[in-house]
Amino acid sequence: MTETIAYFTEDDSVAAVTTRVGDGTDPRLARVMNALVAHLHAFIKDVELTQAEWALAIEFLTNTGQMCDGNRQEFILLSDVLGVSMLVDAINNRRPDRATENTVLGPFHVDGVPEYPMGANISKDGIGESCLFEGRVVDLSGAPIPGARVDVWSDNADGFYDVQQPDVQPPHNNRGVFVTGTDGRYWFEGIKPVSYPIPDDGPVGQMLGHLGRHPFRPAHMHFIVSAPGHETVITHTFVRGDDYLRSDAVFGVKKTLIADYAATPDGPTIWKSTFDFVMTPEATQ
Amino acid sequence: MTETIAYFTEDDSVAAVTTRVGDGTDPRLARVMNALVAHLHAFIKDVELTQAEWALAIEFLTNTGQMCDGNRQEFILLSDVLGVSMLVDAINNRRPDRATENTVLGPFHVDGVPEYPMGANISKDGIGESCLFEGRVVDLSGAPIPGARVDVWSDNADGFYDVQQPDVQPPHNNRGVFVTGTDGRYWFEGIKPVSYPIPDDGPVGQMLGHLGRHPFRPAHMHFIVSAPGHETVITHTFVRGDDYLRSDAVFGVKKTLIADYAATPDGPTIWKSTFDFVMTPEATQ
Ligand SMILES: [Fe+2]
Ligand SMILES: [Fe+2]
Repeated sequence: MTETIAYFTEDDSVAAVTTRVGDGTDPRLARVMNALVAHLHAFIKDVELTQAEWALAIEFLTNTGQMCDGNRQEFILLSDVLGVSMLVDAINNRRPDRATENTVLGPFHVDGVPEYPMGANISKDGIGESCLFEGRVVDLSGAPIPGARVDVWSDNADGFYDVQQPDVQPPHNNRGVFVTGTDGRYWFEGIKPVSYPIPDDGPVGQMLGHLGRHPFRPAHMHFIVSAPGHETVITHTFVRGDDYLRSDAVFGVKKTLIADYAATPDGPTIWKSTFDFVMTPEATQ
Repeated sequence: MTETIAYFTEDDSVAAVTTRVGDGTDPRLARVMNALVAHLHAFIKDVELTQAEWALAIEFLTNTGQMCDGNRQEFILLSDVLGVSMLVDAINNRRPDRATENTVLGPFHVDGVPEYPMGANISKDGIGESCLFEGRVVDLSGAPIPGARVDVWSDNADGFYDVQQPDVQPPHNNRGVFVTGTDGRYWFEGIKPVSYPIPDDGPVGQMLGHLGRHPFRPAHMHFIVSAPGHETVITHTFVRGDDYLRSDAVFGVKKTLIADYAATPDGPTIWKSTFDFVMTPEATQ
């Protein structure tokens, strides 16, 4: 074992903790935990955290943990509003410039959603401003990708996902899975999504209040696009012109993900949103 | 408001979050939260945290919060084993060299303990190796401090505090309060404390296991020494020679707090431990 620092001092605080790690420890765990200790101690020294502030932090973390249950993950919300979720996503999904960027998955994805033929309407309640979503799934050279799975979901006209209102919305309202043909094209009908607040009745919402931040996300359609041999794209397309594009509570907006919504006076839907997904080859291990 | 960074990027991740803080925010809260974001993002970039590691961290924090109840504070344990509690204590209690150093309060202090006359025996069950604790409470010039309140507590011979075993130990076993006279001296009988593990049946104990760290604290007697016009001293005296002095699970040991335990073959007790407390004047605001 590394020689340990026997007695903790303010100056040697990091080494006092990190030299305790045992020899048989998984190297990656040791690396991550020791970096955590170094950065955490640096933060405390930087602000000279008071005892009262430390006690508040303990209380906040405890309340955040106790707010969690099967339907609510307050620590993910905390990670989201501190930009941590987006940062981890960014680090793990660096892509060439032309490729479609990732953004956060969010808590409302559902497995086992029905696969529909192209052109189907995923708005089961028929409420909201109808919109045709269409575009192509292509590779970096622009060639169409056939057999790409396009898994989509959005909120309803009131800003709620079906799983948030199981007694109000029909099953799989505003959700669907589509698979591209040889032309790589997708198209389906739904509604133009609306902006909505993240759940803000817990400790994280209180924190946002103290920081003078609102809890809203700009309107977006969620997409997971996957195809054999390509990196899965977990992303949203955002509604250009939304009031919250520049202040997304969870920092999910990327400039390249803002989509046009064109009025279609002659079309069967009120709006049409066109967006092409550009996939990168899967990393070979 | 500061101009916000509209779209989050890996490079601008800190500014994207910190520039969101509203104008009316308490300046200290803004300072602490923005430093937290900067150091937290620096940590994540430093280790290039993976999505799986992030998910593990969310799960760990959630479990830690859910382990807490009226009798168990798992987040304080986490703070303790990461050296955070000791660091906050050190930063907030910097003292001149001669003065007695602080250490962590720990979770087992109790209010409303009886005040005894000097010389009383705080071992209510009479189990353990008897020990006379004695010394003086003095100021930086060495002058005795009369009327100093000396609040003491230790574990029993099995390593448990009375509050951990309310059905086994008599009330206030190994606890007492004493007040110095004009000579500043204190003396009382108790038992020589023994080393004990912090509660390790939760997420924090599991973490210690993965890091190859044991959960033990070296044997210690707790003291809170307070007197009008002086900074309160919250500290322990440690038993010289204890196996865990150099590996206290919570980093509470300071070299100056290690006390001699002398065998006293002719005395009424088996051991005698002498320790003087040197108090600093209260900071004037
Ligand atoms: Fe969403
Ligand atoms: Fe203790």
